[in-house]
Amino acid sequence: MNYDELYSNIVRKGSFLCVGLDSDPELFPEHISALANPIFEFNKAIIDATAQYSVAYKPNLAFYEACGVAGWMQLAMTVEYIRKTDPSIFIIADAKRGDIGNTAKLYAKAFFEKMDFDAITLAPYMGRDSVDPFLTCKNKWAIILALTSNPSAEDFELEKLESGQPLFRKVMEESMTWGTKENTMFVVGATRPEKLAEIREYCPDHFFLVPGVGTQGGSIAEVAANGMNRHCGLLVNVSRAIIFADRSDKFAIVAAEKAREMATEMAVLLKTLL
Amino acid sequence: MNYDELYSNIVRKGSFLCVGLDSDPELFPEHISALANPIFEFNKAIIDATAQYSVAYKPNLAFYEACGVAGWMQLAMTVEYIRKTDPSIFIIADAKRGDIGNTAKLYAKAFFEKMDFDAITLAPYMGRDSVDPFLTCKNKWAIILALTSNPSAEDFELEKLESGQPLFRKVMEESMTWGTKENTMFVVGATRPEKLAEIREYCPDHFFLVPGVGTQGGSIAEVAANGMNRHCGLLVNVSRAIIFADRSDKFAIVAAEKAREMATEMAVLLKTLL
Repeated sequence: MNYDELYSNIVRKGSFLCVGLDSDPELFPEHISALANPIFEFNKAIIDATAQYSVAYKPNLAFYEACGVAGWMQLAMTVEYIRKTDPSIFIIADAKRGDIGNTAKLYAKAFFEKMDFDAITLAPYMGRDSVDPFLTCKNKWAIILALTSNPSAEDFELEKLESGQPLFRKVMEESMTWGTKENTMFVVGATRPEKLAEIREYCPDHFFLVPGVGTQGGSIAEVAANGMNRHCGLLVNVSRAIIFADRSDKFAIVAAEKAREMATEMAVLLKTLL
Repeated sequence: MNYDELYSNIVRKGSFLCVGLDSDPELFPEHISALANPIFEFNKAIIDATAQYSVAYKPNLAFYEACGVAGWMQLAMTVEYIRKTDPSIFIIADAKRGDIGNTAKLYAKAFFEKMDFDAITLAPYMGRDSVDPFLTCKNKWAIILALTSNPSAEDFELEKLESGQPLFRKVMEESMTWGTKENTMFVVGATRPEKLAEIREYCPDHFFLVPGVGTQGGSIAEVAANGMNRHCGLLVNVSRAIIFADRSDKFAIVAAEKAREMATEMAVLLKTLL
């Protein structure tokens, strides 16, 4: 998917919601746990319930890899199911990979060819070698960790360099020269909204994938006010506050309700701010 | 495996060689490619040929994940086969993971419980949250990327902070306070041997996993001279220069020969420097 397609999907659906498929089997309702492919069945119910309110899904790979081969299979099934349900949905592998040269090429193959993901999250620590191989795949995206939403983002990401700028800004400014707004996004957490406005000044055009809304405390309105650009430029990710809002056999109905509420708020913000 | 066991295996075998199982199917001899589980069969031949000269194996997960479910299964088969061949061997998942909280816990479960790895490589960008969950597993290890062997380590790892110190040093000094030499190692590349001596001064006791010897140009003697401590403190990884030293049907014989040469050099260095 390219930049214009993503933007027009956002406008058409009136939503910049990304549903995080952090599908932890320990939190599933009993009747789902009893099924043959519980992760896939859980995801299928969530996708059926939320696809009309979302422009993106983001499976976090840890939850799948923790289940070994069975988890890996259900990840592939999930990606196929999203594609079948709504081909306009942007699918992100939240893999936080970061490796070099040939190894990075193989990750690109795994996520962009073996499975039909649109984007993959990448850790920038090892530098350009670990990002470049993902930038050569047409209509595929590298989403680079910049300022994450966790408390220990302070350990290194916010560490000041000799220039006086924090590390995450160096990561953004440097990696903006490797790719373009057509193939690069950044992870910028919702938990530091004041930073978001600052970041928009030196990174006006790129999309940001914004975690940290919901359970972690960030707000959609604040993220939009500080981070939206003239092509929206935001994918706000919500995981637990949608998929585990209810843990009974009504989980999908409640997930739909939560996603609908958020999409309604987003539609208003898009009309007001775009 | 704990620190003392690892050290005594090094002394007993007279080797600190880690064989990197960067098992790229595109480089396999034809008779291997024709088999049902080519990655596993290739690894099995390499393990049979090199186990007596090695104290560790390090599958790089990209090569397995690129083959999807089949690759993931062959990774599990490889770990089991190493354990069966020689239970004293240290097995490293070169995964370069880095995620937070619950997600990191699930990675720990995937690599330390579902599969019987001894250690996992981790990217430190997101800070302590992304490392802590790996430090609570008894006799398991977190191997944190510090100064990697690739050229673009210069992009961020060598970037100077306000303190005047490079980022990788901050990463090491900070993370040395999270764990101990019993559960934490660092990745320090062989391609900058002058840095290795400098690093040993402020990190005297920890093991280093050292990539970059062989194809990337680092030398075993230089690494040992600059990086060895009184418990050896080194696992020198060699991948392509062993496993793809020959690509005919004699690949395993040549791999054994290369590993034997390196282990012989290491035995002399251990006698001289320990």
